[in-house]
Amino acid sequence: MRITVAEQPVGRLSDAWRLAVGTGRFDLALRRDYQDSLALVQREIGFRYIRGHGLLSDGVGVHRPYDHQGQRHVRHAFGYLDQVVDAYLELGIRPFVELGFMPSGLASGDQTVFWWRGNVTPPRSHTEWADLVRATIGHLVDRYGLHEVRGWPIEVWNEPDLKEFWQNADADAYHRLYEVTAHAVKDVDADLQVGGPALSPGADDGWLPRFAEFVTDRSVPVDFVSRHAYTSGPAQHVPFGVHQTLAPPQRLLEQFASPRRLLAGSALADLPVHITEFNSSYRPDNPIHDTAFHAAYLAPVLAGGGDLVDSFAYWTFSDVFEEVGIPTALFHGGFGLLTHRQIRKPTFHLYAFMNRLGPQILARGADHLVTRDGTGRIAVLAWASVDVTGGEPLDGHTVRLSLPVAGSAARTAFLLRSSVSEESGNAWRAWSELGRPLSPTARQLDVLRQAAEPGRRHSSLPVVGGRVELDLHLARHEVTLAEVSPVTDETPPWWDERRLLGGEPS
Amino acid sequence: MRITVAEQPVGRLSDAWRLAVGTGRFDLALRRDYQDSLALVQREIGFRYIRGHGLLSDGVGVHRPYDHQGQRHVRHAFGYLDQVVDAYLELGIRPFVELGFMPSGLASGDQTVFWWRGNVTPPRSHTEWADLVRATIGHLVDRYGLHEVRGWPIEVWNEPDLKEFWQNADADAYHRLYEVTAHAVKDVDADLQVGGPALSPGADDGWLPRFAEFVTDRSVPVDFVSRHAYTSGPAQHVPFGVHQTLAPPQRLLEQFASPRRLLAGSALADLPVHITEFNSSYRPDNPIHDTAFHAAYLAPVLAGGGDLVDSFAYWTFSDVFEEVGIPTALFHGGFGLLTHRQIRKPTFHLYAFMNRLGPQILARGADHLVTRDGTGRIAVLAWASVDVTGGEPLDGHTVRLSLPVAGSAARTAFLLRSSVSEESGNAWRAWSELGRPLSPTARQLDVLRQAAEPGRRHSSLPVVGGRVELDLHLARHEVTLAEVSPVTDETPPWWDERRLLGGEPS
Amino acid sequence: MRITVAEQPVGRLSDAWRLAVGTGRFDLALRRDYQDSLALVQREIGFRYIRGHGLLSDGVGVHRPYDHQGQRHVRHAFGYLDQVVDAYLELGIRPFVELGFMPSGLASGDQTVFWWRGNVTPPRSHTEWADLVRATIGHLVDRYGLHEVRGWPIEVWNEPDLKEFWQNADADAYHRLYEVTAHAVKDVDADLQVGGPALSPGADDGWLPRFAEFVTDRSVPVDFVSRHAYTSGPAQHVPFGVHQTLAPPQRLLEQFASPRRLLAGSALADLPVHITEFNSSYRPDNPIHDTAFHAAYLAPVLAGGGDLVDSFAYWTFSDVFEEVGIPTALFHGGFGLLTHRQIRKPTFHLYAFMNRLGPQILARGADHLVTRDGTGRIAVLAWASVDVTGGEPLDGHTVRLSLPVAGSAARTAFLLRSSVSEESGNAWRAWSELGRPLSPTARQLDVLRQAAEPGRRHSSLPVVGGRVELDLHLARHEVTLAEVSPVTDETPPWWDERRLLGGEPS
Amino acid sequence: MRITVAEQPVGRLSDAWRLAVGTGRFDLALRRDYQDSLALVQREIGFRYIRGHGLLSDGVGVHRPYDHQGQRHVRHAFGYLDQVVDAYLELGIRPFVELGFMPSGLASGDQTVFWWRGNVTPPRSHTEWADLVRATIGHLVDRYGLHEVRGWPIEVWNEPDLKEFWQNADADAYHRLYEVTAHAVKDVDADLQVGGPALSPGADDGWLPRFAEFVTDRSVPVDFVSRHAYTSGPAQHVPFGVHQTLAPPQRLLEQFASPRRLLAGSALADLPVHITEFNSSYRPDNPIHDTAFHAAYLAPVLAGGGDLVDSFAYWTFSDVFEEVGIPTALFHGGFGLLTHRQIRKPTFHLYAFMNRLGPQILARGADHLVTRDGTGRIAVLAWASVDVTGGEPLDGHTVRLSLPVAGSAARTAFLLRSSVSEESGNAWRAWSELGRPLSPTARQLDVLRQAAEPGRRHSSLPVVGGRVELDLHLARHEVTLAEVSPVTDETPPWWDERRLLGGEPS
Repeated sequence: MRITVAEQPVGRLSDAWRLAVGTGRFDLALRRDYQDSLALVQREIGFRYIRGHGLLSDGVGVHRPYDHQGQRHVRHAFGYLDQVVDAYLELGIRPFVELGFMPSGLASGDQTVFWWRGNVTPPRSHTEWADLVRATIGHLVDRYGLHEVRGWPIEVWNEPDLKEFWQNADADAYHRLYEVTAHAVKDVDADLQVGGPALSPGADDGWLPRFAEFVTDRSVPVDFVSRHAYTSGPAQHVPFGVHQTLAPPQRLLEQFASPRRLLAGSALADLPVHITEFNSSYRPDNPIHDTAFHAAYLAPVLAGGGDLVDSFAYWTFSDVFEEVGIPTALFHGGFGLLTHRQIRKPTFHLYAFMNRLGPQILARGADHLVTRDGTGRIAVLAWASVDVTGGEPLDGHTVRLSLPVAGSAARTAFLLRSSVSEESGNAWRAWSELGRPLSPTARQLDVLRQAAEPGRRHSSLPVVGGRVELDLHLARHEVTLAEVSPVTDETPPWWDERRLLGGEPS
Repeated sequence: MRITVAEQPVGRLSDAWRLAVGTGRFDLALRRDYQDSLALVQREIGFRYIRGHGLLSDGVGVHRPYDHQGQRHVRHAFGYLDQVVDAYLELGIRPFVELGFMPSGLASGDQTVFWWRGNVTPPRSHTEWADLVRATIGHLVDRYGLHEVRGWPIEVWNEPDLKEFWQNADADAYHRLYEVTAHAVKDVDADLQVGGPALSPGADDGWLPRFAEFVTDRSVPVDFVSRHAYTSGPAQHVPFGVHQTLAPPQRLLEQFASPRRLLAGSALADLPVHITEFNSSYRPDNPIHDTAFHAAYLAPVLAGGGDLVDSFAYWTFSDVFEEVGIPTALFHGGFGLLTHRQIRKPTFHLYAFMNRLGPQILARGADHLVTRDGTGRIAVLAWASVDVTGGEPLDGHTVRLSLPVAGSAARTAFLLRSSVSEESGNAWRAWSELGRPLSPTARQLDVLRQAAEPGRRHSSLPVVGGRVELDLHLARHEVTLAEVSPVTDETPPWWDERRLLGGEPS
Repeated sequence: MRITVAEQPVGRLSDAWRLAVGTGRFDLALRRDYQDSLALVQREIGFRYIRGHGLLSDGVGVHRPYDHQGQRHVRHAFGYLDQVVDAYLELGIRPFVELGFMPSGLASGDQTVFWWRGNVTPPRSHTEWADLVRATIGHLVDRYGLHEVRGWPIEVWNEPDLKEFWQNADADAYHRLYEVTAHAVKDVDADLQVGGPALSPGADDGWLPRFAEFVTDRSVPVDFVSRHAYTSGPAQHVPFGVHQTLAPPQRLLEQFASPRRLLAGSALADLPVHITEFNSSYRPDNPIHDTAFHAAYLAPVLAGGGDLVDSFAYWTFSDVFEEVGIPTALFHGGFGLLTHRQIRKPTFHLYAFMNRLGPQILARGADHLVTRDGTGRIAVLAWASVDVTGGEPLDGHTVRLSLPVAGSAARTAFLLRSSVSEESGNAWRAWSELGRPLSPTARQLDVLRQAAEPGRRHSSLPVVGGRVELDLHLARHEVTLAEVSPVTDETPPWWDERRLLGGEPS
Repeated sequence: MRITVAEQPVGRLSDAWRLAVGTGRFDLALRRDYQDSLALVQREIGFRYIRGHGLLSDGVGVHRPYDHQGQRHVRHAFGYLDQVVDAYLELGIRPFVELGFMPSGLASGDQTVFWWRGNVTPPRSHTEWADLVRATIGHLVDRYGLHEVRGWPIEVWNEPDLKEFWQNADADAYHRLYEVTAHAVKDVDADLQVGGPALSPGADDGWLPRFAEFVTDRSVPVDFVSRHAYTSGPAQHVPFGVHQTLAPPQRLLEQFASPRRLLAGSALADLPVHITEFNSSYRPDNPIHDTAFHAAYLAPVLAGGGDLVDSFAYWTFSDVFEEVGIPTALFHGGFGLLTHRQIRKPTFHLYAFMNRLGPQILARGADHLVTRDGTGRIAVLAWASVDVTGGEPLDGHTVRLSLPVAGSAARTAFLLRSSVSEESGNAWRAWSELGRPLSPTARQLDVLRQAAEPGRRHSSLPVVGGRVELDLHLARHEVTLAEVSPVTDETPPWWDERRLLGGEPS
């Protein structure tokens, strides 16, 4: 069945899909591979904010107690913080500040999370913590300007509902931390934006209402609400990796919707909602992240998520990430849109395709999103459906569209189609064919970069009655971008291709 | 029929195809677009020397007569010359020096060639010309070192057998110029290399023997012999362009072979022979240069030319070229491997594919060349045959090879295939579909750069009995590079792709 | 005598000094050396607009007549125009469009100006000229957007009062050209800005009023008025150069002031006035441009010009310039702020110092300008007086200032002083000492780049009663920038420099 | 007294001073700030090899034990190693491989050194250690080629004579480790170079002879001998720093000389000797490293060290270094030639001056070294003497030289003098004047980069009798480079500077 797309827009595509992206721990941003990767991501996708753990952990070196003349003092040292934020701004991205984890010199216990040992215990002095928050945010304001920093969301801690991330998953202790922190932030400037509670998908439905009640009762400032979304089942371990079942992608959208649902009627009902992390699997060593399946799995989420929330941040932009240790192979199932050394995964291209969409939505469906921009270019994102049980999909899925081409003058339209699938734009598949080299040679990296290019075709389509008929056949796990632009023909009257080899004019 | 390629090399691939390349007039090298283009060419192809007209023409400003206290003097000014040669060396390429044309302040007449008015008359003072040559070559030696400059061939003038390039095509006058010039060069250093006579394809068969006789009789130094090769018929003009018939590509190889044939038995018989220009059409406004046909047409020439001469220089690396005026459209039939702003034409890729071949020749034929490098990678160049009458080729041409894969351990080989054809890697075709915009927008340039990427596929091939069977089906006007590398399999024993979505181990 | 500078600003420093800068002919902008130079200028100075001759001359290739089926047509070809404007915008500068000179295919005569032969005759068809203007401006609007191009001033021709630049200096013919052109521009969009008449300093005082009368009488659009300013006497020729007497710098300011004076009471009295060219000498081969004298000579002009006009454009930013032929020596008296290959001349630094001034003017005088920016940094520009008769200046000129330092907390201020003079920041002097090499070696270029660095000193000044006393002694032909910033002292209490080598604490 | 320097060289300057340089732990090389710093160091100094700790520590992730089907295996993962070595080679520097410290999965104990916890205990399995060494070196050979890796020295462990670096400072355990390691290296290829024992300055004089005896007795391969050199006394702690007394610089040269002295007569007597670390203080938080004093202190060591050893490696090229934790201030007394963000310290310039010396030594003394290169340029390094007791030096120290200028033609010579001292090229002093900001603003970093430029002066010196008289007055803690080049005068006969302003010719 062919869908006839009308000329009038049916809506606008929000920036929620690109508002934020996740990253490995803060000090990894000092690395060149990280910054090269972020530069590529910004050039081809263009996120607005970046969020990761560990700003206050020991690896950034901010909180530095010392003794002088028999007394304890704290020096706040911002050398690495400044290096990272300078780099972010230079790359056209801003921090989505996450305040955590606990500096060891301020921690009340020694429980840590991750290979890099982020301390997840409450501060032993809330006063010193508040000083730390005020000094840090105050320093950012001094260095980058109040106007700039007012635009940066500031989130308090990460997943306090999980005992891995917050000692005993103690909600009261979190409430207290939140209160102290929010006030410390507002001490610097009342218009800075603070929020939380950055809940994990596993948080029970009461968590958020209780948080709302707490902040309301005690008049604690809160400017936005945040939670996370993942769809994977329990980890089945193999060496250096895991496998997991996945719920269907719609489950992600349901999770996106939950904060508004749970807060309806509360004082927090109208606050912005940020999904400050989402992905299929929450494991940085699940090879599903590297596949074409993954792009097709997330396509409907990117196409639809903006209807539900103000942002949803893919966790994470790069495989430069060390939560379960240093990766042992180029492709190791990392979260990244890019591997180390900037091999683009299929999901990278899904985002790059989103970046080519126009702001006007002309049509949308279960397998497609049709948009247009100010130049009259129509950009269609279409995707094959996926089977999370691993079954083979039905063959021959085709999206058929009749598109309105602006301007009566054009007699043809130019079609540029870009695709990733099992066969195209699939560096992971090429890496498999290369024998899965743990640490590829320079030549193999070049091959992988070439294999990572999306398949591209172009052609001329006739415009008939102001319309173009477009048939998009979708291969297994394909995500495709079709761009259709009306053509202004500048071919001179004397042009005759048959004369190319000196033959007679026709 | 399948060709069984033996393990033992049958020859070595010489560097003649990449030893030199042509360029537009010398001072165009001051331009950024030119240098950006040359940087790209050097990165993906890597020529050794570059040759073009006009080093001594007014646009470079070397010869600068002036009066002081009533007397004529000449200042030799090397500011632009140095800028260009500095840029060449920085880009990893060296000058193939062509001495010409005549500075207007030294010319005996006012006949000029090209839109940019290169003066083609003899010097009015051979003494002042010899001073100019000595000063110029001497300056190069001072600046770049004698060892370096000894490696640069120095050619005297261009196509003196054509009256467009040398007043009256006066052979005696050329002989005199050659003699004076060769001695001036050797005055600087006896080991500098000087040669000529840079004949056009139209020179009669007596020209070269007469030159040989002249230099032998008068003991004039000559270190190499040079001529040009083109295969196009008379120009059929249209506005801003021409069409021409072409002779088959073998005619180019015959032209390559002619100097050795004509000089056999002479004192010059054993000198290096340089084809200092070659192309299909000699016109910078013939659209054939922009086509996939052109790559397929030249493929057998690049594959075989090195058997006949020491170098053959494609005329020219870039469309930054102004002999018939400033181009009026992005694709205008220029000689370039690249258009302005670095769109890669199919012939660019033919050269880039050559650059991927190994030094050992394992097999060769009318439609293929099989090579191997030190890592065991086999690289096959194969090409569709062309019909210079413009007829449609037979369908279904397939090159079938059985390739020996080094090392018994490999159970698979990785195939990476890159192609240009009517459909792939064909920016000119995309530009046609875009309506042939004279001056494309930034977005159209991006599209053209994407369309210019060769088609690429990769796969895993079984190794059976130390061999891989490779079938290369060739589309219309296709030139393809197939790279086959034995695979070292690092797949761990626990890997099971069926578990990707958490399914049962198989 | 010490000048006590008050805390309250006495005025604001306008951007007139940096609003525009001149350049050699349009197609020189295709060169890499040109673009490298412009990038450096933009990084360290930051002009807003750039203006030069020759946009419509043959070297840019816009106007391209041809015959087809027996009829004359014109193709408008914008390939080079686009390359240049793309480069300008990428470098953060916009065109100040000058429409001229005449394409040879449209010229009514063959009179040319400059070595590069710009045709200076009226169009043979005003209709075809108007088509050319509409096509060119229309193309710019299509490519860069209407909003953008509305910001670009469009000036009609150059110095029509001189017979070298406009055949017979025919005012009526200019008026006609202006009228046709202004209407053609407004045909594209009524809000585009068009103006003229770009008079030379030699124009008689009646020229401008007559122009005003003409446009007023015939209701011809005019959005701004322009003229040029130079102060040099007749050329005394030597080979490859000239010497000239100079009038005092105040003569430039008088020329700046003249359009408003001459137009007072006319309909054009309130239009913006642009000095679209100014310099000391109008010759591109007068070595005075390369000297420290020149920076000191122009310092009061830059400090004061903004009071008189909306812009005054230094002619020109770079020695990449060919009006009297290709330069024969690195330093040749070119207009440039930079030589070829980016050696910074003293006048470059004068502009770079201006770029460090703050927007608030705290004080000004015959030899100084005191400014402050939003961070509290005070920036003082001071200059030695010059003697245009070449006499030796009085020794020991010192500018003594008492500066208010914002913020009572600071007990010290940091002084950074940067200077050019006969001894410092004077690459021309170093080049003289090197023996005036026509084409310096790579090593000599490095030395010249080092010699071109301004002399710099820094020190700590005591703040007493909220004030800093600053004594600026000025050497011969010195221009100096003194930046004074209040210090926030973060020195820890335990710091004791005497302990550096392990000595006893003091 | 003036020293008359003869024309004949008295020796050659060896590359020992630049053969190697030290670095912070291996994985810091992943950082952008590190790589930017190394790029600058390589551009202006050009070291050959780089050596640091931690290649086998957990932060590089090479040794990765895992269980599969109930059995322990080890995966060797080289992703980070490859990233670092790729970057080194790209920057033109090679690894001086140090094998250490112990991966935690292979360690026999849990003793660690440094903030970043390098494990310093013997392997719990020497077999697994040998496997690790073979795998690592074998991987480097596979990736970079045998020829390349044969050029890289491979050193076994670091300072095994100190209990901080090797559990119990157990010499027998080290001997065993050395033996196993050396054999494992030679298993890969017999021509790889292995050595040790990388002794600290505190090792007793028996250590090296005992090592020699051990390797000789057991025929253990050893290709070079290594030790370290420092001159500082005990640490006097202040918060975030220390102060120490220093021995005179000659003490460093004595330490350099000691291995040859101690091994005279042994089987190791003729081996290359590498000082794989040297500096004044061994503390990365002693502010002496940031001072002009430090450059003057080390000048005689750099000038003379090459007579005694094959290399001496400054510890370290950059402040990107974390042994005692993350630095809390831009200037914190780090070892680096550069601070974070590439502020050049005075000692950086000492090395950059060394890089300008020629290979021929014409003269040397207690305060100077006179060299010449192939172009005839004479380069003099001269330095003020230092007083390690912190006393004020005598005033007015002047080095007076009479230099022979090659070529009788030159009537003048060009002098370029570059200096660092208390006043010049001293960013640390400027930072003090700025109030010692812990984390400077972007503007302050710019100021510091400017303040870090050496003072430079140039002048023309007369050549009389083929000689130039050069007086180098040295300020407090000054190190100066004076470059004297004979001038080829290209000044034209008509040049007359008095005509600059149009005056009468003289």
